[in-house]
Amino acid sequence: MTDTPYLRIDVECLDRNIAAVAHRADELGLTVRPHAKTHKCAAIARRQLDAGAAGLTVATIGEAEAFADALGPAAPDLFIAYPLWLTDHKSARLRALADRARMRLAIDSVAGARQLADRLGDADVEVVVEVDSGQHRTGVAPDDAGELARQATDLGLQVIGVFTFPGHGYGPGDARREAAGDEAQALTRAAERLQDNGIDPVVRSGGSTPTIGFASSGVLTEIRPGVYPFNDAQQLELGSCTADDIALTAIATVVHRSGTRIVTDAGSKILGADRPAWTSGFGRLRHAPDARVTSLSEHHAVIEFPADSPTDAIPDVGSTVAMVPNHVCTAVNLVDELVVSDSGTAWPVVARGANS
Amino acid sequence: MTDTPYLRIDVECLDRNIAAVAHRADELGLTVRPHAKTHKCAAIARRQLDAGAAGLTVATIGEAEAFADALGPAAPDLFIAYPLWLTDHKSARLRALADRARMRLAIDSVAGARQLADRLGDADVEVVVEVDSGQHRTGVAPDDAGELARQATDLGLQVIGVFTFPGHGYGPGDARREAAGDEAQALTRAAERLQDNGIDPVVRSGGSTPTIGFASSGVLTEIRPGVYPFNDAQQLELGSCTADDIALTAIATVVHRSGTRIVTDAGSKILGADRPAWTSGFGRLRHAPDARVTSLSEHHAVIEFPADSPTDAIPDVGSTVAMVPNHVCTAVNLVDELVVSDSGTAWPVVARGANS
Repeated sequence: MTDTPYLRIDVECLDRNIAAVAHRADELGLTVRPHAKTHKCAAIARRQLDAGAAGLTVATIGEAEAFADALGPAAPDLFIAYPLWLTDHKSARLRALADRARMRLAIDSVAGARQLADRLGDADVEVVVEVDSGQHRTGVAPDDAGELARQATDLGLQVIGVFTFPGHGYGPGDARREAAGDEAQALTRAAERLQDNGIDPVVRSGGSTPTIGFASSGVLTEIRPGVYPFNDAQQLELGSCTADDIALTAIATVVHRSGTRIVTDAGSKILGADRPAWTSGFGRLRHAPDARVTSLSEHHAVIEFPADSPTDAIPDVGSTVAMVPNHVCTAVNLVDELVVSDSGTAWPVVARGANS
Repeated sequence: MTDTPYLRIDVECLDRNIAAVAHRADELGLTVRPHAKTHKCAAIARRQLDAGAAGLTVATIGEAEAFADALGPAAPDLFIAYPLWLTDHKSARLRALADRARMRLAIDSVAGARQLADRLGDADVEVVVEVDSGQHRTGVAPDDAGELARQATDLGLQVIGVFTFPGHGYGPGDARREAAGDEAQALTRAAERLQDNGIDPVVRSGGSTPTIGFASSGVLTEIRPGVYPFNDAQQLELGSCTADDIALTAIATVVHRSGTRIVTDAGSKILGADRPAWTSGFGRLRHAPDARVTSLSEHHAVIEFPADSPTDAIPDVGSTVAMVPNHVCTAVNLVDELVVSDSGTAWPVVARGANS
């Protein structure tokens, strides 16, 4: 018996979620390159690759190293979907990676491209241009993608296409649909600008878990969803999944009860503190859809049940409950292993904390 | 050279912060029992003990184990300031701890006290009653503390006092002062109720970093601040510290710049995602007090400078900047080590992830 709190995976549900996205991508004729930052777990990456994923997306050099180590000779294509700034040390790490896995890197500035060309120009890596489709984080404006791609090519880089992350799809109402539309438009435009500059945009990569349902096959060649193997309270509230699709929960013990309020031992140090303004709380209870996590400390989740709840609907002190984190990617990064169903085994989170 | 992003400690500032609270407590005649969940680091615990701390506060059995292991025979009093629900396995772990360190435990329900008495009654542990002074998380109402203490005593437990956490002092305006007042009132009342029941409230423990400045010596015997060795953006915005008192920063690289917006590689997986409604953003830049972290992804901090900023005030792509997390306790828990000033050494975060 593992002591609470811990993160638990329902493997049947996990496999169902992986199969569903593989099927959806197949229907649309899209490649899946799952973002492995979500699970940081070799056992889950293997399941995604077995279901047909073309490779993995990661966010950092450290994540790429962890997956290359864990998957060994089976290591697939690794795409670091981030505009890295290459120092000497980071370049040396990337060069070592390129010797054992096929690497795809990202640029979103001439300065970054020059850094890459200077330090890694002779290594066999592919490069894609990041495009801002409306999240306004990193990436160039779609119309600037061609000029950047041309300059990068002149510097000797092997530019094979464009990518974007429609992160503004994380929002209520029509945000998902609109972000998917923005994504298609931005990638279309950026791809045209590459063509204008004589560069073939073979890769047109987009996608996120909330926008998969609205992905258009005419424009994209590849999607990079992260959260979909697990889902979480955010996806539930966005409407991207149902309660039956939640494959990861934090198993917690009720340590306090006063009226319709209970407190569990799963706080922000295992659930993560993510709480966008459009969410209804800091997470959910798996089996009490009307309860809300109204506040979260490091080791306390304060949960309110509706005022008219019958007394026996409110878990007593000492009970075990399953909580659904708001954002599963930050929850997983807080633990060393994920407990697998009730098998007594656990999968190591091999890329936990791999921030650099 | 450590690759960015990483957490860096300014040791001179750290020592100054530890000395300041030791001095303040001394003036008030209060014992300091620092909450070690903030740093999870043996090297910092030793510095606090050297400065006169009477013992350490921790939040979980796992943290107590980590500090007992790391400090060895020098392990001080350990107070787990949390109403634990004791299963067989957790009881066995606590019993092993009680054999090598002086342990203080917490109760806030008769059920919890019974669990403790049944499973650990013959071990030599001290018990304190948690009181709710206004945060409405765990703890009993002050007037109920006497009855719970009496029942616990009848069960054979050794009750030595009361404690509270005035967490509602984390707020703008007069919140700190008011929470300190609530704390004093709640502990006074709870202590009286213990006396009414023939139990001497030797320990009257409170305190948090924001309320130290308002702590009253007449009532409290002990304070348990956590954040003060480092401070963070929350304390800065609450007015509990100045920019010169920030001892921990996330060293990050600027990876993108568009006009007055920059993006660094330190996201929520190293800064933590804490963002209470009263804060002005997701953290701060150490040397740009007017800039704000307007959004945070896992590996991106989006930072806006004022619209009228001169161009050379905005760090260029490739620059290194020092960021101040909103809540240092969750930031530290995301890394395996803290880089110490520019010494090239690092202190391990021995209790990282010790949630249970």
